[in-house]
Amino acid sequence: MNHLEYEPFIGFIGTGSLGFPIAENMLKSGASLRIYNRTQDKARTLEAYGAVLVSSPADAIPVTGGILISVVSDDQAMQQIVDSEQFWDNWSAGGIHVCMSTLSEDMALAMAKQHASHGVQYVSAPVFGRPEAARRRQLSICLSGSDSKTRSNVQALLQSVSQSCFDFGDRADAAILVKLCGNYMISAAASTMADVSQFISRKGLNPHEVNHMLTSTLFNTPIYQNYGKIMADQPDGFQMNWTALKDLDYFRKAHSKIDSQSELANVLYNMFHS
Amino acid sequence: MNHLEYEPFIGFIGTGSLGFPIAENMLKSGASLRIYNRTQDKARTLEAYGAVLVSSPADAIPVTGGILISVVSDDQAMQQIVDSEQFWDNWSAGGIHVCMSTLSEDMALAMAKQHASHGVQYVSAPVFGRPEAARRRQLSICLSGSDSKTRSNVQALLQSVSQSCFDFGDRADAAILVKLCGNYMISAAASTMADVSQFISRKGLNPHEVNHMLTSTLFNTPIYQNYGKIMADQPDGFQMNWTALKDLDYFRKAHSKIDSQSELANVLYNMFHS
Repeated sequence: MNHLEYEPFIGFIGTGSLGFPIAENMLKSGASLRIYNRTQDKARTLEAYGAVLVSSPADAIPVTGGILISVVSDDQAMQQIVDSEQFWDNWSAGGIHVCMSTLSEDMALAMAKQHASHGVQYVSAPVFGRPEAARRRQLSICLSGSDSKTRSNVQALLQSVSQSCFDFGDRADAAILVKLCGNYMISAAASTMADVSQFISRKGLNPHEVNHMLTSTLFNTPIYQNYGKIMADQPDGFQMNWTALKDLDYFRKAHSKIDSQSELANVLYNMFHS
Repeated sequence: MNHLEYEPFIGFIGTGSLGFPIAENMLKSGASLRIYNRTQDKARTLEAYGAVLVSSPADAIPVTGGILISVVSDDQAMQQIVDSEQFWDNWSAGGIHVCMSTLSEDMALAMAKQHASHGVQYVSAPVFGRPEAARRRQLSICLSGSDSKTRSNVQALLQSVSQSCFDFGDRADAAILVKLCGNYMISAAASTMADVSQFISRKGLNPHEVNHMLTSTLFNTPIYQNYGKIMADQPDGFQMNWTALKDLDYFRKAHSKIDSQSELANVLYNMFHS
């Protein structure tokens, strides 16, 4: 018996690089999805799996109560969704909004409050994993917010797209904070690998050999192995991408709220933020 | 047939926290060691395994040619050894000095030159692994310097104390540079874990739960797991130890020789160097 069978349909917002494979896997597992994406054409191929494409965020909300999943890029994109026409009207029967985006701490707390004021459960469910991992249903998901029964239902739903779920309790910000910490650690790891490959290369040694040694012994995890290979191929080519910088910035802002700071996160951010 | 059987005796200098278990394992594997340690009492229990304790570095050198292994803490300690009385005189028949210490790049190159001028092969063989790993013969060793035949002999000798050896060629500085990179990566990883535990703890969440999530998924290696546990136990207690700072400093100096710098290594060094 699949939890998905109980759902009339699930709303789904955001079929970007991560949202797309998540939606695809949910459809393949038998879910009925009503999908909104800002650029509708990017979701078009999901119709072959039974997805119904809709033209506004509000149209994706199960008006008789149910679940909405959103996978958007940042605070601003989430704000646009909740500010969109009819969004709150269509939640009149209540339901659960599962936000898989990595928002800022402040935004997660504001969202939880605003949803609660409209009688909607809000669950933070940011994911670790690249699009390939999403395709292989190997995401790791952090959950928090709402109550344990709701999170338990959400966890059952997300089993079809992930390899592990970790429950961090009732605070909507908790899962976000864990995700920001993890992304900070990934950025630090990638930057040290880039540093090492560039250094080794400038010293006239082979960065692939050094990378092999380090990632087959002390640092034998996919993060170091994957980044190590990329950096060894292009020892001078590392740039931190937009998403990583956004999350470093959210991490810094979460620090500033408790009057602390991460010197490492600051230097990483400033190194790559142009 | 064990390589060790060919040796009349092997000289061994430095039975500190790392040198001691290495010497002990070599003795247990059947090697005859002549051991010098600045504080002789610390090597005393090795006599039970047949070690002969000597009272100067020169006395540990196999005067008929052979192998000397040294495991000391830094450049200065190594300089004192080669400057000690009779040190070069006792190398009159040549031989191999295997230096398992993490020296600076400059020191490794200077040592290689000085040994060569006295007809002695010099092999850099810095090790990755804590004393517990040394006890379990689970060290990872980087080798470089001298020639491939000599390194191959050294590798055969060190098999009894390690789980893996990586050969980085004829340059005496190569293995040192790899080791300094690895230690820099360890320091960066430990510092990010400390940062995360402190942050999570100040946010009122449980650092052990967060640590469990991160080190069972993205960062599932002993380095992150071990440091993560220590940091979660004492979220405000992280201090970088003397050895880690020394190696960060050597890494920075090796950078400065090619007119580059590692901003991350600099900030780590300055954060913890009082």
